[in-house]
Amino acid sequence: MVKKIPKPSLARLPKYYQVVTSYLNRKNEKYISSSYLSDCLNIDDSQIRRDLMYIEIGGIPRVGYDAKELRDVLADYLGYFNLNEAILVGVGNLGTALAEYKGFERYGLSIVGLFDSDPEKIGNLVGNLKVDNIENLEQVIKKFNIKIGIITTPARYAQQIAEKMIKANIKAIWNFAPVTLDIDEDIFIQDENLAENFSFISHYLKETEPEKE
Amino acid sequence: MVKKIPKPSLARLPKYYQVVTSYLNRKNEKYISSSYLSDCLNIDDSQIRRDLMYIEIGGIPRVGYDAKELRDVLADYLGYFNLNEAILVGVGNLGTALAEYKGFERYGLSIVGLFDSDPEKIGNLVGNLKVDNIENLEQVIKKFNIKIGIITTPARYAQQIAEKMIKANIKAIWNFAPVTLDIDEDIFIQDENLAENFSFISHYLKETEPEKE
Repeated sequence: MVKKIPKPSLARLPKYYQVVTSYLNRKNEKYISSSYLSDCLNIDDSQIRRDLMYIEIGGIPRVGYDAKELRDVLADYLGYFNLNEAILVGVGNLGTALAEYKGFERYGLSIVGLFDSDPEKIGNLVGNLKVDNIENLEQVIKKFNIKIGIITTPARYAQQIAEKMIKANIKAIWNFAPVTLDIDEDIFIQDENLAENFSFISHYLKETEPEKE
Repeated sequence: MVKKIPKPSLARLPKYYQVVTSYLNRKNEKYISSSYLSDCLNIDDSQIRRDLMYIEIGGIPRVGYDAKELRDVLADYLGYFNLNEAILVGVGNLGTALAEYKGFERYGLSIVGLFDSDPEKIGNLVGNLKVDNIENLEQVIKKFNIKIGIITTPARYAQQIAEKMIKANIKAIWNFAPVTLDIDEDIFIQDENLAENFSFISHYLKETEPEKE
């Protein structure tokens, strides 16, 4: 039995996927070595080999991994071959940025619906989609059996939007509102608190420049 | 000597900060328990106590932590008391969302300059800042001794922008462009690859619904 992959290892797999994909695009080589991945990503060689054991791909000692096989096994493991349809609520700047972003399809994500409560936004075309009235949210989720909800509303609306999504049977929420959602149901919540992530930088600067106060 | 904090522990500290801050705003209580934090965040009690040992704050058994002390020690540790000035390059939707976001100051981040190469954007007012010409980037960084550069350009420009920032002596880069920067210098890079983070969701959906292909 394969052990459950730890979250930090899972977080590195998309990086390996990115490197091996661009390697295949640029080079005419059958194999890719863990030391090549290590150089590109500044991650320890041994760490990379341990991570790849979770996806059950075997390398050849002193040669490396079959690059195409590695790419495909990673894509399959990460679910990129499945097309995951999502709806997004909150068509502000961040919501618009996500709706217009071209790179998601490669990762299996297709945003198929946009919702807002602002009459000025409803009906506008954003990234080829017409912004729909938030009142139609539950109906659309159910009708098209959407599994993923993306929340890019201001913090104060996030909880009620999440509850509506869950009532309509969404399975995973990607939450960009800077608030911790209070959810009892067995739903997968991926929080993106951008301000929180800034803490890595502020902590680093504080540690390296202790004289600055 | 205090051990260096592991990255997953560091990543949780802003969440504790958020909970203890809202606890102090809403309740008139001196102490906050690790089990309260645990309930709010769905993180193990024992994990929370281990994380807080890194910031050298002691709790009282069966009572908890002094809430104000906890908030202040976390804020200090995370560098929130320092005001960190940053400049941002790439005033598209994502750049605009970050520039207009009101929540950063609480985390010690102040965006003080916006840059773009698009003549249609230069001179526009975004979140109280006038968009400056990218040609002035290095000069402004040096003049105001800016330590943090935020990159929200398309992927193909990110490397050259990063190099310009580093030449002007920036210390940390917050990179939102979906590309791995190739940097030799001792610079702190915080990558935010939103599409990569989606992998947590796609992997989860694949694991829980193996029949879907």
